[in-house]
Amino acid sequence: MKPLTLPPRLLMGPGPINCYPRVLQAMSHQLVGQYDPAMTGCMNEVMSLYRDVFDTQNQHTVLVDGTSRAGIEAVLVSCIEPGDKVLVPIFGRFGHLLCEIAERAGADVHSIEVPWGEVFEPEQIEAAIKQVRPKVLAVVQGDTSTTMLQPLEHLGEICRRYDVLFYSDATASIGGNPFHTDDWGLDAVSVGLQKCLGGPSGSAPITLSEHYVDLVRTRHHIEAGIREDSHQAARGSRIRSNYFDIPMILDYWGESRLNHHTEAASMLFCARECAINLLEEGIEASIKRHKTAGDAMLAGIQAMDLMPFGNLSHKMNNVVGVEIPDCVDGEAIRQQLLLDFNIEIGTSFGPLKGRIWRIGTMGYNARQDAVLHTLQSLETVLRRAGHKMALGEGVDAALGVYASAGASYE
Amino acid sequence: MKPLTLPPRLLMGPGPINCYPRVLQAMSHQLVGQYDPAMTGCMNEVMSLYRDVFDTQNQHTVLVDGTSRAGIEAVLVSCIEPGDKVLVPIFGRFGHLLCEIAERAGADVHSIEVPWGEVFEPEQIEAAIKQVRPKVLAVVQGDTSTTMLQPLEHLGEICRRYDVLFYSDATASIGGNPFHTDDWGLDAVSVGLQKCLGGPSGSAPITLSEHYVDLVRTRHHIEAGIREDSHQAARGSRIRSNYFDIPMILDYWGESRLNHHTEAASMLFCARECAINLLEEGIEASIKRHKTAGDAMLAGIQAMDLMPFGNLSHKMNNVVGVEIPDCVDGEAIRQQLLLDFNIEIGTSFGPLKGRIWRIGTMGYNARQDAVLHTLQSLETVLRRAGHKMALGEGVDAALGVYASAGASYE
Repeated sequence: MKPLTLPPRLLMGPGPINCYPRVLQAMSHQLVGQYDPAMTGCMNEVMSLYRDVFDTQNQHTVLVDGTSRAGIEAVLVSCIEPGDKVLVPIFGRFGHLLCEIAERAGADVHSIEVPWGEVFEPEQIEAAIKQVRPKVLAVVQGDTSTTMLQPLEHLGEICRRYDVLFYSDATASIGGNPFHTDDWGLDAVSVGLQKCLGGPSGSAPITLSEHYVDLVRTRHHIEAGIREDSHQAARGSRIRSNYFDIPMILDYWGESRLNHHTEAASMLFCARECAINLLEEGIEASIKRHKTAGDAMLAGIQAMDLMPFGNLSHKMNNVVGVEIPDCVDGEAIRQQLLLDFNIEIGTSFGPLKGRIWRIGTMGYNARQDAVLHTLQSLETVLRRAGHKMALGEGVDAALGVYASAGASYE
Repeated sequence: MKPLTLPPRLLMGPGPINCYPRVLQAMSHQLVGQYDPAMTGCMNEVMSLYRDVFDTQNQHTVLVDGTSRAGIEAVLVSCIEPGDKVLVPIFGRFGHLLCEIAERAGADVHSIEVPWGEVFEPEQIEAAIKQVRPKVLAVVQGDTSTTMLQPLEHLGEICRRYDVLFYSDATASIGGNPFHTDDWGLDAVSVGLQKCLGGPSGSAPITLSEHYVDLVRTRHHIEAGIREDSHQAARGSRIRSNYFDIPMILDYWGESRLNHHTEAASMLFCARECAINLLEEGIEASIKRHKTAGDAMLAGIQAMDLMPFGNLSHKMNNVVGVEIPDCVDGEAIRQQLLLDFNIEIGTSFGPLKGRIWRIGTMGYNARQDAVLHTLQSLETVLRRAGHKMALGEGVDAALGVYASAGASYE
């Protein structure tokens, strides 16, 4: 059996993307035991690092062991009791996912929709809250399926006014677009590592307000196999999942250190390195780097006579949708980029399937060279497929954006 | 912020244990895209490798992205509809966990119990099946909380006779004790990497029979955000979890490659290497190595006038329980082993808390040197704590076991 040898792809899709080398290295650290002071110290350090990533003072900032949708499901299933109303503004595929997960947790889900490529005004969301009176507002910040970034900054105040828990899935946006948990009044946020944080999928950092935690703690049950006489008796309706039971996860991460799962230590080390990498660069600097790379990619695409998708004033910094020209076969273009140039760009879901490509510039790959190689290669493949455009314009436009941003990023 | 520097512990508890260096290295491979042929090829290879690990022909052999209890929950929540009867024979902490997870999935859970340190006779389980008439029999193979290994070989035939789905959690035992999915008539098995497979926690290999898959596929629902007209309409009662929805997970791993989660690629690479490492050694050879290391540790413990816990004829190869002598403080001994000798041994749960230590010899650490260092260090710490024993007897007894096993293992 051969050692793993995968081709050296440049991953310029909507994520996952290439990991920072230091993040990959961090996973190969040898383990220590689950309750070793060195391990619990590392867990505490990770909690502290992600408070900075989330821009929050929330004590309850931990990892859920699974991919980003594990974080979503943990947040939702722990706070939803069957019949609870949940409001989901849907502006892309991941809004549908929030509905799906909330429904399976037993929620009475209400949704509002805008066409893919648009976002909501706060007034639209407030009107729906007034009508539905939900327990939870669940909204995606950046939905890679449409490349749109939903403004969240006015929603916390609205939620407070109507006594609604405010949750956002910021998996695709964190680190490349502004995010302020406390200033925006969020009660729960979940993310993943595989987008602008430059790690692999497999760990879901979450942060939870005191309000959220007080609420889910009313449903606290300790497992029979480890329950002791000194533990408080069970109370509240039981959370429908053991794995995603947030009070139990918090008992494991907190001072009582009650056994729940066995922490996925290598992913913990990885999440730690992702956070340190971001914080050493500086969150502002990272967002600026993503903005410049995204602007350069957008300018290049437009200079190649390609049409970007959606409302550009609400585009995420880290991904752009590109309408596939009528004259070419979108999948054949992607295939050639992959096989001849080792560059991956993304396809699409649902109503946009076959209509747009999605090109990401995120994490480690929000770099000038990655943008330039992608534009040049796309130009070559399109040219050979018969698409007409002025040659060299794409890469020149991107270089122009980098020149006026005043720096080139490596 | 400093790079991660953890002490070089020798992890001789009930798991997690030190990983094989090659397994740690495998996680630092750079990623490829989610639907890259190189990635789907790697997923297919992992399916094939775990068929060998599980000794099965089951097509449906995949990873659940999470810790070992993620695998348990996926298997149970996907096959249990609210009100379904589940029978759990409990002989330790992890039997309670199966009950807990099945209850939260809405099952009507029935359990039978033997005292910790014992296992069930097939007749006891058959009698309970006759009485309860469950849909599912869920049983742990090796329960590290008691160190006992439940014989499974006669249960498949019984389950077939009463039309019961037969599921086992073999997390703690696989690779170090015999396991035969098909020969034993299992419908579902879940494991983790962090015991005898010598990896970190964070990926849960599962294997599923056609019978199990046919049953859960009757509850198949495709997510709204990716549903297309050509897809079959939803049918059956919806599985209570999106993340743990096995039909969806199989669609992602199968030929339709329908998007579900984003596969945790680094843990996939890790799971691949764990399997290759086991298969290159040979499953029989690995079990023999675990048996010799376990026997050596047991002999050493007994030679030190310490009392092993439980019914030794049903002890797992890879862990032994040791009664804490009355004259010493069990936690102080553990602490000294950890801090002075960098060796971790385990504490216990529930009725055995404070009563036994648990000492593992598994995966990378099922090695002669690891056994000898642990016995010597335990002797030193016990001697200094005032425990009386004949010095040097423990390590000599262990060396004797290795000598008569005819080889020394590194």
